Amino acid sequence: MTGAVAQAVDASELWSDLEELRQLGARDDGGVCRLALTEPDIAARCWLARAGQALGCAVSMDAAGNLFVRLEGQDAGALPVVSGSHLDSQPTGGAYDGAYGVVAALQALRAIQRSGVQPRRAIEVVAWTNEEGVRYTPGCTGAACFTGELGHNIANAKTDESGVSFGQAMAECRATLNELGVASASLQRPFHSFIEAHIEQGPVLEASKTPVGVVTGIQGVSWFQVEVLGRTAHAGTTPRARRQDALEGAMAVASVMREACRDAEDTLRFTIGRFAVSPDSINTVPDSVRFSIDLRHPEAEMLARIKAQFETLVAKPWHGCRVSLQSIGEKDPVAFPEWLVNEVEAGAGRAGAGSKRMASGAFHDALHLAHHCSTAMLFIPCRDGISHHPAESIRAADAAAGTRALAETLAHLAR
Amino acid sequence: MTGAVAQAVDASELWSDLEELRQLGARDDGGVCRLALTEPDIAARCWLARAGQALGCAVSMDAAGNLFVRLEGQDAGALPVVSGSHLDSQPTGGAYDGAYGVVAALQALRAIQRSGVQPRRAIEVVAWTNEEGVRYTPGCTGAACFTGELGHNIANAKTDESGVSFGQAMAECRATLNELGVASASLQRPFHSFIEAHIEQGPVLEASKTPVGVVTGIQGVSWFQVEVLGRTAHAGTTPRARRQDALEGAMAVASVMREACRDAEDTLRFTIGRFAVSPDSINTVPDSVRFSIDLRHPEAEMLARIKAQFETLVAKPWHGCRVSLQSIGEKDPVAFPEWLVNEVEAGAGRAGAGSKRMASGAFHDALHLAHHCSTAMLFIPCRDGISHHPAESIRAADAAAGTRALAETLAHLAR
Repeated sequence: MTGAVAQAVDASELWSDLEELRQLGARDDGGVCRLALTEPDIAARCWLARAGQALGCAVSMDAAGNLFVRLEGQDAGALPVVSGSHLDSQPTGGAYDGAYGVVAALQALRAIQRSGVQPRRAIEVVAWTNEEGVRYTPGCTGAACFTGELGHNIANAKTDESGVSFGQAMAECRATLNELGVASASLQRPFHSFIEAHIEQGPVLEASKTPVGVVTGIQGVSWFQVEVLGRTAHAGTTPRARRQDALEGAMAVASVMREACRDAEDTLRFTIGRFAVSPDSINTVPDSVRFSIDLRHPEAEMLARIKAQFETLVAKPWHGCRVSLQSIGEKDPVAFPEWLVNEVEAGAGRAGAGSKRMASGAFHDALHLAHHCSTAMLFIPCRDGISHHPAESIRAADAAAGTRALAETLAHLAR
Repeated sequence: MTGAVAQAVDASELWSDLEELRQLGARDDGGVCRLALTEPDIAARCWLARAGQALGCAVSMDAAGNLFVRLEGQDAGALPVVSGSHLDSQPTGGAYDGAYGVVAALQALRAIQRSGVQPRRAIEVVAWTNEEGVRYTPGCTGAACFTGELGHNIANAKTDESGVSFGQAMAECRATLNELGVASASLQRPFHSFIEAHIEQGPVLEASKTPVGVVTGIQGVSWFQVEVLGRTAHAGTTPRARRQDALEGAMAVASVMREACRDAEDTLRFTIGRFAVSPDSINTVPDSVRFSIDLRHPEAEMLARIKAQFETLVAKPWHGCRVSLQSIGEKDPVAFPEWLVNEVEAGAGRAGAGSKRMASGAFHDALHLAHHCSTAMLFIPCRDGISHHPAESIRAADAAAGTRALAETLAHLAR
């Protein structure tokens, strides 16, 4: 017994939309390179604008290049329900990171239209600008400008590697979209709610054979740099007892830190990604090691507790070496409102799609929107958890299941 | 009750010789840069040649630039007792690595002359060419050519960074020394014995307040490269249970390898000097780690036994990662003949110098000479075990004690 809106989702249209989009910026290796506001990205925006116009929807763009397709509701004064993601990709990216969320929202909008439901609220599809942060850093430029977190004059002044400013690139984009009759939209418009569909970029859903992840929030992250200082010594002449081997010290403290993060639920994420040894000579005992820690958890208290443990650990010497810990980045976790998470879960239920609750391990435009309006997310599985890579892949059945869940959720929110 | 030869050692002359030599190639930071066959190295050779001539000794040079100062013995047919080391240094080197062994041998020869002892055998002081292997690789070019291990035509063809061949540099050196009347000597001449005095380049003698190390042999070394292959994953989205973290695997296997080398005697030397992580990105689980192992011990059987243990360890997966071990270099240990080690020990005893037996952790010209004639070594302490560095430092009292021990040993061998 599937909801009427879910039934109106056209899985093959959804898939052919994804296939069409992946041609824009297609790479020879099957991947996609569609950097923000480059020709393929502008082509993708035109594709979305035309698709919206074909449905009789108003299409508009704000000062940060965020593009909106609006299906009017019965009550012109009611705040819109918004869904979407981004169209830009990594340079050696895949076809689904971002694009899936835009195409799914477009298909949801079509399904609602086709189902004959007359929602009270307008429903909008959005494509946020420069989420990946490749051409202009940092990422989520469009979402951050929209919410007011980033001044769009500041954004406009940012330049890419070849010196082209975000403002210049925007102007070109605007000129092209103006030709299609795309109107202007204002930044910081109030939304009723925002739902972002996205590929998981992790292995959890695939492993549990669940087509829909109901995202409860976005993990917080703490980045640290650890430095271990010992003393160089000749590998041949220096007995063990007289060494202060920075690598031995670093391995010891790193392994105790890793152990401290071994939670039974497997929710804490502890990663040492960078690790450099000096002087890095085969016959010299290292005098210094520097390594990074990427620590993530959905609860700020847990991140603070682990940080305090790390601070205690580095206060003592390790194999005669001094250790220091430096915070080099922190983002607080975001918990999505329970009522909206329930809505997504219920939507998946009406769509007949199996679902499980999970936190997002990666950042998304939704992280910014969460400070603007009630926000939640919905994940679908991706093969082997791979993203930001040409091998990024999803199953058509999962894409359809996620879109049905999204369509049911949006229709219910807009009712 | 000190031996007559030891009493004839002039400690202040010894020290002023070392001070004179350190001016040749002196660095502003107090160190020495005297690369083989460069101007300062040729100046040091001239210094030695003149010092020899001033003693009425014959001075000669062989085809590989090895320079000999010969004090004739009573029996012209008896094989000579030879002692010395090298005059070349590291680019940011110290004043004593190599130079001490040449200056100590010269002072020993003077002391024997002064003492009125009439040795049966000739005693020669030698300065071997290009021990450090900085200007021409590998090192010990002179010693290896002398023993026949390296053809001197092959050596002549080697070029330095600016394209100057060893042969060309040799010709310049020869021209300068010819002006001083230095004769030609032949390669592969038989020696009765060779004793090399050297700074320890390690912390053992200093720590035990012992002025003379009686060297029993030179450790063998095995170099390995270990590769650990896992799988990259997103640091935020991948649960611990689904990771194949190459860094976690590398740390686990490295720590068990290190533990396997923890001998009670603290004789095994296990060093991980190089360690590289890929892709070395703060928010990516590493998929590959490559690290080096420098393993040393005076006994070949022990090196073989540890290698077999390593091979067993890498045969199993570590945190889901494949591990491989590759031998990238091996030098067999050299044990000096017991009778000659006893001679050095007895010489130290007659010199009134405290001594202890030890293996050499570093390589020396003696490693090559050991294949040519009975060979042994004598160490003196150096501050903090530091060498190959401008901070290299020795105490004058230790320099004198080592020279007294050397002089007694040479006189006894030549008697």
